[in-house]
Amino acid sequence: MAEAHETADQRNAIGRTEWVIAEGYIPSGGTGGSPALESHETACILNASDSPANVEITIYFSDREPAGPYRLTVQPRRTLHQRFNDLSDPEDVPRDTDYAAVIRSDVPIVVQHTRLDSRQSALALLSTIAWAG
Amino acid sequence: MAEAHETADQRNAIGRTEWVIAEGYIPSGGTGGSPALESHETACILNASDSPANVEITIYFSDREPAGPYRLTVQPRRTLHQRFNDLSDPEDVPRDTDYAAVIRSDVPIVVQHTRLDSRQSALALLSTIAWAG
Amino acid sequence: MAEAHETADQRNAIGRTEWVIAEGYIPSGGTGGSPALESHETACILNASDSPANVEITIYFSDREPAGPYRLTVQPRRTLHQRFNDLSDPEDVPRDTDYAAVIRSDVPIVVQHTRLDSRQSALALLSTIAWAG
Amino acid sequence: MAEAHETADQRNAIGRTEWVIAEGYIPSGGTGGSPALESHETACILNASDSPANVEITIYFSDREPAGPYRLTVQPRRTLHQRFNDLSDPEDVPRDTDYAAVIRSDVPIVVQHTRLDSRQSALALLSTIAWAG
Repeated sequence: MAEAHETADQRNAIGRTEWVIAEGYIPSGGTGGSPALESHETACILNASDSPANVEITIYFSDREPAGPYRLTVQPRRTLHQRFNDLSDPEDVPRDTDYAAVIRSDVPIVVQHTRLDSRQSALALLSTIAWAG
Repeated sequence: MAEAHETADQRNAIGRTEWVIAEGYIPSGGTGGSPALESHETACILNASDSPANVEITIYFSDREPAGPYRLTVQPRRTLHQRFNDLSDPEDVPRDTDYAAVIRSDVPIVVQHTRLDSRQSALALLSTIAWAG
Repeated sequence: MAEAHETADQRNAIGRTEWVIAEGYIPSGGTGGSPALESHETACILNASDSPANVEITIYFSDREPAGPYRLTVQPRRTLHQRFNDLSDPEDVPRDTDYAAVIRSDVPIVVQHTRLDSRQSALALLSTIAWAG
Repeated sequence: MAEAHETADQRNAIGRTEWVIAEGYIPSGGTGGSPALESHETACILNASDSPANVEITIYFSDREPAGPYRLTVQPRRTLHQRFNDLSDPEDVPRDTDYAAVIRSDVPIVVQHTRLDSRQSALALLSTIAWAG
């Protein structure tokens, strides 16, 4: 369904280069008992292009200057479901703390935000496509 | 509310031809005990136009080349709630595995992404309108 | 923050005139024991303008022609949280059945889609801004 | 990744100045036993710019004129997760009542809408990026 004069890379480069998750919160507790069911907050990133995506995440807080950038690479034609729990360089993302995230890439990507909350005996899930700047 | 010079098909052709679900994950377990309550991940597609929608789904992974395209048809003026669990040609969608999906159609459609998770005794639900490319 | 030459009505007329909910499903069961906790699916509509919004909802199915239009009015500067469960003219919306909805208005509105599922002992919630055509 | 001739403020000013949450509802009950697990409805606001964001929230109801504006400020490079439960000037937001919210700012912001519902023993979560007017 693509135009004949497009390159494969142009055809597959879906998305935008700037995304925002305004609601971030990692609960410190969890009842899941396994990594899959541990409370976590995830930025699900798709790089459908044929070039590596160099991604920078900046974390904003309510009462201090932003942290980051956190740098990561999403390989061509790959998805990366990055848990904020696992970001540690330049610093950990604090638990039980309101935050927001801006995600920038040098090639178009798509970002979806998901949280699994297992603080109580039943897990709760939320997900939304991030805001494309 | 449509312009008089539009055809019925133009007036009803709502949506876009390229959609992205960046967060995909089918849990392998479930406590529901019935097909409706089995853990599942669904692409809900509306074809409000008067032509059949020929749809191609490509599945992206974190560590291998994409799978697909999976081909399906949504009849005119119909909705199709396609479970990723049920996609099998050219290959099954693996369980307990992060993935993302790009959905392309030859007529405008609308795609919403929903997951029901019944791994624990209480079910969890998420839904978001997919990203329109 | 509005331009001085706008009328109050233009300034307040937020949104679009065509919206799509691609994922519809009303579970027939529920454990809530009260109307607030009964399983339901809702189109939350905001009419921030100073004119009444004449709204038409068309329901699409997987295996039959669409139903509707269902007609309703949202008064100026009012919100209406319309349960699909309560639509009955020209026909009830069937339970345990996949559907999708197109919502058209003669003035700009905003539509958000929410479902509360109380089939199991713990309720589940989903919500997403509808697709603006 | 920004153009060299942009100022830092222009580069960081992500978002829009008008946002809508069409689905609002604060349950009066809750089983959480702690502020974090009390039923609440939140507008998560990110001000990534280098100027303070002066924000006005107007609350719309089904059967009366709107309330507000509620005024708040989000400092530069900060996020504010504002619970509707805590808005009190010019009046409290009523519980167990359908409402909608329009959020306007004098600098671009991003708004995400989240609800935690703890009326039953298991909590339920929803979240969606608000509608950008």
